Parts: sequence; C-alpha cells; structure tokens
Amino acid sequence: MTLTLYTAATPNGYKVSVALEEMALAYDVVKIDLTAGEQKLPKFLALSPNGRVPALVDDGFPIFESGAILLHLAEKTGLFMPSDPHGRSRVVQWLMFQMGGIGPMMGQANVFYRYFPEKIPAAIARFQGEVRRLFAVLDGQLARHEYLAGDYSIADMANWCWVRTAKWSGVETDGLPNLQRWKAAIAERPAVQRGITVPEPAKVKSEDEEDLRKIAERARPFLEMGRREA
Amino acid sequence: MTLTLYTAATPNGYKVSVALEEMALAYDVVKIDLTAGEQKLPKFLALSPNGRVPALVDDGFPIFESGAILLHLAEKTGLFMPSDPHGRSRVVQWLMFQMGGIGPMMGQANVFYRYFPEKIPAAIARFQGEVRRLFAVLDGQLARHEYLAGDYSIADMANWCWVRTAKWSGVETDGLPNLQRWKAAIAERPAVQRGITVPEPAKVKSEDEEDLRKIAERARPFLEMGRREA
Ligand SMILES: N[C@@H](CCC(=O)N[C@@H](CS)C(=O)NCC(=O)O)C(=O)O
Ligand SMILES: N[C@@H](CCC(=O)N[C@@H](CS)C(=O)NCC(=O)O)C(=O)O
Repeated sequence: MTLTLYTAATPNGYKVSVALEEMALAYDVVKIDLTAGEQKLPKFLALSPNGRVPALVDDGFPIFESGAILLHLAEKTGLFMPSDPHGRSRVVQWLMFQMGGIGPMMGQANVFYRYFPEKIPAAIARFQGEVRRLFAVLDGQLARHEYLAGDYSIADMANWCWVRTAKWSGVETDGLPNLQRWKAAIAERPAVQRGITVPEPAKVKSEDEEDLRKIAERARPFLEMGRREA
Repeated sequence: MTLTLYTAATPNGYKVSVALEEMALAYDVVKIDLTAGEQKLPKFLALSPNGRVPALVDDGFPIFESGAILLHLAEKTGLFMPSDPHGRSRVVQWLMFQMGGIGPMMGQANVFYRYFPEKIPAAIARFQGEVRRLFAVLDGQLARHEYLAGDYSIADMANWCWVRTAKWSGVETDGLPNLQRWKAAIAERPAVQRGITVPEPAKVKSEDEEDLRKIAERARPFLEMGRREA
C-alpha cells in the first residue's frame, strides 16, 4: 500500500498532511510549485483535473478535492469520524461548511486583500465581512460543543487549517472566545504541528504587514486570478 | 419516517428537491422566504446554523449544507452513488468540486453581476472568468465520461442545478459541447423537471436582461452581502 500526497504550503494542502499525521499513515510527498505553475501541467491535471493542490494517490487511485481526500482517509482508517449515520453526517455537514464557506470565502478575501492588482475596498470588505460572519457561526457551534461535530474529527482539521490563517485574510478572531479556545487546543496536537510543516511553509521573518505584502507580491503573477481561458 | 425539506427557489435548494424526486421519496416542503429574512430566524438557525437554505429534517435529525444532505440521502437509499469505495469516492470528488468551486464562484459572480450596489468590472470579470474556467473543467471530464463520475449520480444533480443558471451569472456555455450535451440530457429527466418546481421559481416574463435586472433589484436588500455583524 502506498500513499502519495501532491501538495504545497497552503491551507488546503495542510488539511491532508494533518489528517495523514493524525492517522499515523506513511506517505510520500511530492511538492507542487504553484509559483512555477506546476499545478497546470498535464501530468498533474491527470490526477487533479481542476489544476489545484492537494491530490492524493492511494495505490494508483487518484483523488482530488481536499474534502474528498479527508473522507476517503477517514473511511479507510475508521478514524476521526463516527461510524453511526447521524454522527457521520454531523462530520460531513461541518466539512461541507468548510468546503463551501470558510475555504472559498477566505480564499476570496485573500485574493482581494493580498493579490489583486487593484485595491477594491468594497470587495475586500465584502469578503472579510463574510469570513467574520462564518467565524461567528463556528463560534456559536463551539459554544455548545467542544469540537464541531462531537469528538475531534476531520471536520475540525479542515476548518482549523483555514481559521489559523485569519491574519493573512485580515480578519480578527477577537470576541469569539469559543473559536479561540478550539483553535488553541488543536494547535497543541503533535500530529497537527507536524502536518503543517509538510511541506515547509514560506519563511516569514516577522508577521509584519510589510513582509506579508512582499510575499503576496511575489506570488501574484502565478496564481489563478480567474482569467477567462481562450 | 418523515422527511421535511426547508427550501427556496434557488440552485442549492433545487439540488435537494431534485434528489428527493429522483429517489422517489415522500417529503414535506416548508418554503423559507429569503426576501423576508426567514433564514435568519432562531427557529430556522436551530436546523441550519449558517442561516441558509436548504435544510432537511429526517425523522427529527436536522441536516444543513446541500452536499451533506445529498450524501445522506444517497446513503440512506443506496441510490445514485456506487457502493464500492472507488466509485463512491469519484462521486464525492465531483460533489466537492461543486460545493467548493461551481457553487461559491457562481454565487459570487451573481453577487457582483446582479446584486452588488456598485458595479465593479474587475470583480465581475474575475468571477465570470473563474466560472468559465470551472465549466471547462466539467467539459473536459464530460468529454471522457457520459456523466461526471460514471453513472448518473448526486454529483451530476449538484453541478447541473448550478450550470443550468449560467445565463443568470452572465456566463456562456458556447464552445463546451460536452457540457451542453450533459446539460440537455439531464434536463430531459422527469424527476429533475419536477424537482425544479419545488418551490415554484420566480415568474419571469422573459429572459430579457431588463426583467432579470428587476428581479435582482427586488431581492438585493434582503440578501446576505457579507456585512460585518455587530
Ligand atoms: N476545493 C479545493 C480547492 C483547492 C485550492 O484552491 N488549492 C489552491 C491552494 S490552497 C491552489 O492549488 N491554487 C493554485 C491555483 O489555483 O493555481 C480543495 O479543497 O482541494
Ligand atoms: N454551501 C451551502 C450554501 C447555501 C446557500 O448559499 N444558500 C443560499 C441560497 S442558494 C441562501 O440561503 N441565501 C440566503 C442568505 O444567504 O441569506 C449549501 O450548499 O447548502
């Protein structure tokens, strides 16, 4: 049995390396250089038709979409997801909330706040506001439950890998004590700490806004900005 | 056994009514008036904590996120999803592609093209361009397969309910013959034709841009525009 993870130092990539570490599975890593456009090469598109990381190949079977990879791994191992239909569905619901909400909205907040050539205040405000609203939904759920869907699960891994990058999106978690408690608890987990170094994150000297801006500047020309293709 | 669907005449709502019709399940319908803000009332938030339609209650068990509802129904009935792990994963992958890609990007295209008070050409172009790129990914998959993930499945239902509204997002499907073939084939299915009338769509006299603009105008003040909440 072999598992090969195609990934980059991004929230969607880390979701999978965190899950693999939590499940104590052995895996090989192939780093995809997003700034070189490796995610759009035919070789990679054969694994991930949308040309995005992550992709996982499990004994020759390719899987794209991080949410689908997490479900595959949870089913394969029987870990981090209950087996009864209701418990299972609760995990799937909060995983879908991440895939359809937190992920795309934080992604768009980043595009308009960090990468987009024009600064469009109304678009930045829209996405940062929507992220903050979604954070409040998580906070509400975490006021009533220790983790999002009962015990710690793949739904927590998926949401956490994005929530931890709130600063990059320019969104605060102040005033959301349950979200903060949950964020700190997951950050303590050794497997999570290992997962977020696969691959190594970009070296930032400080969390200084000026440094962050320079990193975004360098990445800009290579990122999918939703251009119409010919 | 009782199934109650809380829904509105929107693509995410229709995904579930289409699936229920395809599976020949009996269900009750509660129409949520989005323009009156019923999706943000405590009574509804108890079922759907993100304050969005659709939600399904299955014998007292509430489910939010349309993708989670579709998976629940497919598992419950054993229909429109293969039972072997690879076949199942293929369906989940294309369902996740809809949840994380087609859905949010068409949603944002609509916001900036139809509802946003300011017209921001760069934001409109970004989202329409991204939708077109995602349509080309679907077209590529449909060039090699009759349906997205083998046989007709919940992944087709989910993507189709959005793709059919391309015109509303101002995006063409010209030059994507496989997508057009698939779109037309699914439109022929009697269960699909019933599903997209639950609830009745807004009456549009014509597909005239001027009429469409008036509908958007009326809905605008009530839609979640990503405001920061207090
Ligand atoms: N819904 C997808 C999103 C994947 C995604 O957006 N990946 C980003 C990195 S976080 C990427 O590969 N971007 C490069 C590009 O779009 O060219 C998933 O969850 O896997
Ligand atoms: N990811 C969610 C998205 C649901 C969603 O965005 N629903 C829209 C209608 S298509 C809605 O309820 N909008 C009203 C609002 O945001 O206030 C799902 O797939 O269920």
